[in-house]
Amino acid sequence: MKLTVEATDGAARTGRLETAHGVVHTPAFMPVGTAATVKAMTPEAVAATGAEIVLGNTYHLMLRPGAERIERLGGLRTFMNWRGPILTDSGGFQVMSLAKLRGVTDDGVTFRSHLDGSAHTLTPERAVAFQHAFGSTITMVLDECVRLPTERATLERSLDLTHAWAERCKRAYVARPGHGLFGIVQGGTEDDLRARSAASLTAIGFDGYALGGLAVGEPQATMFRVLDATVPLLPADRPRYLMGVGKPSDIVGAVLRGIDMFDCVLPTRSGRTGQAFTHAGTLNLRNARHADDAGPLDPGCACPACAGYSRAYLHHLVKAGEILGAQLLTWHNLHHYQVVMAGLRTAIRERRTAAYAAAVATEDATTEEPTTPS
Amino acid sequence: MKLTVEATDGAARTGRLETAHGVVHTPAFMPVGTAATVKAMTPEAVAATGAEIVLGNTYHLMLRPGAERIERLGGLRTFMNWRGPILTDSGGFQVMSLAKLRGVTDDGVTFRSHLDGSAHTLTPERAVAFQHAFGSTITMVLDECVRLPTERATLERSLDLTHAWAERCKRAYVARPGHGLFGIVQGGTEDDLRARSAASLTAIGFDGYALGGLAVGEPQATMFRVLDATVPLLPADRPRYLMGVGKPSDIVGAVLRGIDMFDCVLPTRSGRTGQAFTHAGTLNLRNARHADDAGPLDPGCACPACAGYSRAYLHHLVKAGEILGAQLLTWHNLHHYQVVMAGLRTAIRERRTAAYAAAVATEDATTEEPTTPS
Repeated sequence: MKLTVEATDGAARTGRLETAHGVVHTPAFMPVGTAATVKAMTPEAVAATGAEIVLGNTYHLMLRPGAERIERLGGLRTFMNWRGPILTDSGGFQVMSLAKLRGVTDDGVTFRSHLDGSAHTLTPERAVAFQHAFGSTITMVLDECVRLPTERATLERSLDLTHAWAERCKRAYVARPGHGLFGIVQGGTEDDLRARSAASLTAIGFDGYALGGLAVGEPQATMFRVLDATVPLLPADRPRYLMGVGKPSDIVGAVLRGIDMFDCVLPTRSGRTGQAFTHAGTLNLRNARHADDAGPLDPGCACPACAGYSRAYLHHLVKAGEILGAQLLTWHNLHHYQVVMAGLRTAIRERRTAAYAAAVATEDATTEEPTTPS
Repeated sequence: MKLTVEATDGAARTGRLETAHGVVHTPAFMPVGTAATVKAMTPEAVAATGAEIVLGNTYHLMLRPGAERIERLGGLRTFMNWRGPILTDSGGFQVMSLAKLRGVTDDGVTFRSHLDGSAHTLTPERAVAFQHAFGSTITMVLDECVRLPTERATLERSLDLTHAWAERCKRAYVARPGHGLFGIVQGGTEDDLRARSAASLTAIGFDGYALGGLAVGEPQATMFRVLDATVPLLPADRPRYLMGVGKPSDIVGAVLRGIDMFDCVLPTRSGRTGQAFTHAGTLNLRNARHADDAGPLDPGCACPACAGYSRAYLHHLVKAGEILGAQLLTWHNLHHYQVVMAGLRTAIRERRTAAYAAAVATEDATTEEPTTPS
């Protein structure tokens, strides 16, 4: 797996990540395909938005349909009919957020499935083995995701565990050409702990470095401060991935600070609840003011939802709970995100990233009220 | 609106129905787009299955988003981005089956909306006016749909009302080139009442003739007997439409008896509940036996669901309640139905309709158990 940085603008950079399953142009946004599907989208539609890599969730997939089954069926890419690369997380974050956690020991985490209550254990070795079974292009190490805010002592203990697990993941990982294993820098919003984490992980050595535990409720300025302090400590020749981020304004700000990769459920989840990201800000299609609007969702957008349908129709679909509403709004949102990423890549080459980022952040600050009667 | 019969085989016939919004090759199956969307399908996907005409439900559309709104937004075809012709029903059937019926008078029916309990009236004139507002290519008359079985005297009174309403619809209907108004033959399973209905309606004169009140629980043989008795009484130069039918075996049997047009929720609704129509019969994708099956849904099918995905994956999507499962199975089912229709059109030209119909009916008789544990 090889990252070629082709242009920079301050800390921002654009380039190509070459993988066994295709090239990813960075900065890149990865749509979330939790249960082996980007919800409400065919893989052809996902690719048509411009996405080159998708994310899968190990926690969900190990529970259903199961890692061994996916392996027997040819791996995750074959299973879900996605031709490009796939990054899978380690399951650590979902164990914290979705499962009924039973305990964390030095060995790993035990938990009960949110689906059927069955008991499971996730260790660094098992997390890597699951991702090998999936045939993941990019494997993520298992980290401990502590709930923030927490005491500094707790954070320090968690960091030590995370680093020990990262080392075990590295040992368990089987290197293959065009595949990679990413470490995850933790440390909350403590700059010195982030620095310690970056040092520990780069000492172990990974194919890429993620930042976890951000965009979990802290102010955006705090996240940006952590990025300012941490990103320069990461190797320049490896991709940097900001996990679970975020709104368009989060993404452009993080790219300005040197991040290459993102994932977030926001465009897909919002699409299923009637929210649309547009060049005029975030719209809520449930709102009555769209009911008679014959205009497109976003006049500046070339996606199928904007090309073929009125806001009035999308409003109708959302109000009626029609699946097509989720399909079209998800498509639009993913397209919008990919347009932002393409805009960033061009802006970096043209050394006007700050101005582009400011424009996107201004758009993103315009948010329609959640719901009005209709 | 012009029907050209190009070939016949016994009572079966194939041809072209030319409308203001495109040609429909008959026998034709119309996917149901109740609320201005064929559920879980983009219009492009509907067209890609081979469908040339879709159906909309006046009852649903008059309640939400409203007929006047659809008219202001350019009509139903523009609203839902469907380029081909649209047939709309009159709302009479749904008033009986979905709404809280308040009363039937000579003037029309009063009912409460199943959405919000609001009171509404549907008269022959209003049913036609709504369909004019939609810009429907084919308008259906308002008929009374009595629940069967019922006493003969009730059926006779209902028939008189239906014929009086049909005449009022004809007067209210504004003829436009390439558009049409269809009458609806009722009479339950009484051959003589069907004959009386056919005589009354042909005396009024319509652009096409539908048969209503069939496939509502009676044995298939009874429905076929009614068709045998009634279809010959309808004008040969006008399209014949069997409403709400049906399973593939119903359709091929009805085509053998001279029917040209069909609509049914079965392929779309089944697709959303994990049922698939295949050349090997009806499959239930929820069943555990599909969980490790790497083969396609239907090896003989060229639809996207069969080309790109395994039964195991479809099983996973259905079990996980993923929208993509509904999308792919609906696509497959609509594709399968259109393949059956195309097969019928070819078989009629080649004068082997009975053999083709028998083969489809045999396939259709193979039905997987509804659900087994997984």
